[in-house]
Amino acid sequence: MKTETNLGTSLDPWYDHYAARAAGLSASEVRALFAVASRPEVVSLAGGMPFVAGLPNDRITGSIERVMATVGPQALQYGSGQGIPSLREHITQVMAAEGIQASPEDVVVTTGSQQALDLVTKIFIDPGDVILAEAPSYVGAIGVFRSYQAEISHVAMDDNGLIPEALEERIITLRAEGKTVKMLYTIPNFHNPAGVTLSSDRRASIAEICRRHHVLIMEDNPYGMLSFDEPAPDAIRAIDDGVVYLGSFSKTLAPGFRIGWVLAPHAIREKLILAVESAILCPSSFSQFVINDYLDTTDWLAQINTFKGIYRGRKNAMLTALDDHLPELSWTNPNGGFFVWLTLPDELHSKAMLPRAVKELVAYTPGTAFFADGGGGQNIRLSFCYPNETDIATGIRRLSTVINGELDLINTFGRGATTSVSRETDYTAPPPNIN
Amino acid sequence: MKTETNLGTSLDPWYDHYAARAAGLSASEVRALFAVASRPEVVSLAGGMPFVAGLPNDRITGSIERVMATVGPQALQYGSGQGIPSLREHITQVMAAEGIQASPEDVVVTTGSQQALDLVTKIFIDPGDVILAEAPSYVGAIGVFRSYQAEISHVAMDDNGLIPEALEERIITLRAEGKTVKMLYTIPNFHNPAGVTLSSDRRASIAEICRRHHVLIMEDNPYGMLSFDEPAPDAIRAIDDGVVYLGSFSKTLAPGFRIGWVLAPHAIREKLILAVESAILCPSSFSQFVINDYLDTTDWLAQINTFKGIYRGRKNAMLTALDDHLPELSWTNPNGGFFVWLTLPDELHSKAMLPRAVKELVAYTPGTAFFADGGGGQNIRLSFCYPNETDIATGIRRLSTVINGELDLINTFGRGATTSVSRETDYTAPPPNIN
Repeated sequence: MKTETNLGTSLDPWYDHYAARAAGLSASEVRALFAVASRPEVVSLAGGMPFVAGLPNDRITGSIERVMATVGPQALQYGSGQGIPSLREHITQVMAAEGIQASPEDVVVTTGSQQALDLVTKIFIDPGDVILAEAPSYVGAIGVFRSYQAEISHVAMDDNGLIPEALEERIITLRAEGKTVKMLYTIPNFHNPAGVTLSSDRRASIAEICRRHHVLIMEDNPYGMLSFDEPAPDAIRAIDDGVVYLGSFSKTLAPGFRIGWVLAPHAIREKLILAVESAILCPSSFSQFVINDYLDTTDWLAQINTFKGIYRGRKNAMLTALDDHLPELSWTNPNGGFFVWLTLPDELHSKAMLPRAVKELVAYTPGTAFFADGGGGQNIRLSFCYPNETDIATGIRRLSTVINGELDLINTFGRGATTSVSRETDYTAPPPNIN
Repeated sequence: MKTETNLGTSLDPWYDHYAARAAGLSASEVRALFAVASRPEVVSLAGGMPFVAGLPNDRITGSIERVMATVGPQALQYGSGQGIPSLREHITQVMAAEGIQASPEDVVVTTGSQQALDLVTKIFIDPGDVILAEAPSYVGAIGVFRSYQAEISHVAMDDNGLIPEALEERIITLRAEGKTVKMLYTIPNFHNPAGVTLSSDRRASIAEICRRHHVLIMEDNPYGMLSFDEPAPDAIRAIDDGVVYLGSFSKTLAPGFRIGWVLAPHAIREKLILAVESAILCPSSFSQFVINDYLDTTDWLAQINTFKGIYRGRKNAMLTALDDHLPELSWTNPNGGFFVWLTLPDELHSKAMLPRAVKELVAYTPGTAFFADGGGGQNIRLSFCYPNETDIATGIRRLSTVINGELDLINTFGRGATTSVSRETDYTAPPPNIN
């Protein structure tokens, strides 16, 4: 038996029992701050919550009632690990809208696309394997990759998305160092958090590079249908059917049902079904039947158009407010999705500034959450999906007060005047409403 | 780039990319057989599906309608990783019925208790760590443990459950061999698949042994409330609050919602919340609100009593049929739950015999599914939870035809007359309806 010499950890009698992969599982400081930020007087530009109040509540209730009346015992029972066939059929129709031709046989329904992300990583990644990801990348993906002890290598992106030349160079460099590069994780459309979209020609280049270098592409596309002007280019999966493609009903319908999916080549799909069964036995039958009925009976594309109108208006409100209150800063102009990526003046640090912002009753997600390597201090992610246009304008005004206040302090007293910050990485999973 | 020399695996271009933990992820032969066994003319004594047709459909529909009318936008939205507070409060009341005093703060809601099993294993088990489990043990647990590359060591049980002396001896032996013994996984009540219940005095002994040897107990209790005569003894968690306890609404209400939970000491619970968020962001808000309303508005204990009556009748029908048709064999007499564990004559092998049984239109789960070490050939698990009493009697009659037919063949022509069987372990996850 070990002697418990460390007073800090000896409070947990199992401190010597955890797996190596659990070493980093501790709540971040940012997490504690977000608990405060959920107070109603705070305008939160931090969350990735869709505006579910914009859904047709009566139609969803109608779907639920039909499910209970017609297939109640099936909806209340265990189902198959792969998901119900009629829903998988619908899912192929949804994907067809993004240029993807696929068989329902190759679709696996998951508990949100987050679970697909988790299980694809579980079946492919040994400790130390490299996953390539955009710089920045989705915070929930970074958390999953860390939980399987992957090494995350960020690849540069610009306003047209991931840069193919940078990707190829990185693959070559890492392999020359003896690293095992297994996978590229990419969010091509209306990127979380960067807001940019991968151009059509780059999609072809990236597919070609990854195929040539034998790197699996995991394409995560929760926002693709939520475009504001012209639709997003066809998915990378539409170019290359070797891609593992992740989709979700969380942004186009409702996250409360926890239904997403993964489309994968035959052999991978077989392993994913077994992985789903091991993890949860099966996705919720009830949720699947309800979404299936909703897609059967509702003009779901019209509902997505409604959402697009709402989110377009909110994005415009955010850009207008940024123009009005922070004209000296730069930000991305997303063509869809939920997020704007703001670049701060060099003197400021997004994580150090957050407590002051919350004190001014505005919350955002610091850029540090989206990097596995300590980057992101110069950036903040602003979400326009959940607050209304008035609140967005108020939030940006408050943010400008914080930013300008910090700059004034520095101009008067020098850099020491602002709070210092530990440069540790925020690599734990965020609270779910921040994803 | 590797040259693809192996024709069999080269069909999967990613065959050289999988993680070590995915090596065993392939569908078992039994799995294919169960696909056939799901035809309606087959009486399935294989599944672990609860009899959801026995639920008050109108009350559940009422709960759903109230949820949509009163908290619709919350039910459709992301929630917290830990689960909604009012449901966690209800869960402590459910556990109080089994002698457990707990705070809602220490409960984490999961996607069925299967996910709790997965995540507890994920945060504790490094490859090669030993998990102790009953011989036999739950097939879905064996699958999870394998997926994290645990070594599973089966400990003997008898009609009073796990044998404390065997447990202590095993811990000492394994540690003397230099093994890292981290955890005991146990199903104390109405065991799946063995049908037996751990006696009250043994619970205290096992808690004491594990505490003294610093072995974490994971207590899995999906069936505890479904007793036929006297209630099960208090949970091990009621004796020792260091136990990690798993509960579920899948057997007492409905598996289609995929809601279970884990009760864990503070430090472990904190890690589990982060693990849930990494795996799925949050459990289904919708499912949680519906179950919360059902528990608020329905006499749920009366409904569990209805289930107890149904399952008691079905168990009796099964034992009567076994007495009538297979009097020379032995089986367990469960005091609750879903399963009877039958021991075959020495000459027969449960997995080898399964195809013949399916041909005779009866299905069961071979004992081999419940061992990680190749054991179980002499046993079969018979489920009485789903088929009605008439079908159970028919199923057992058909089973006796198969068994007696095999014995006749052997008596006449010797052992070579029956199908040989590969003695490989069935360690993959079962189809969900077989759990």
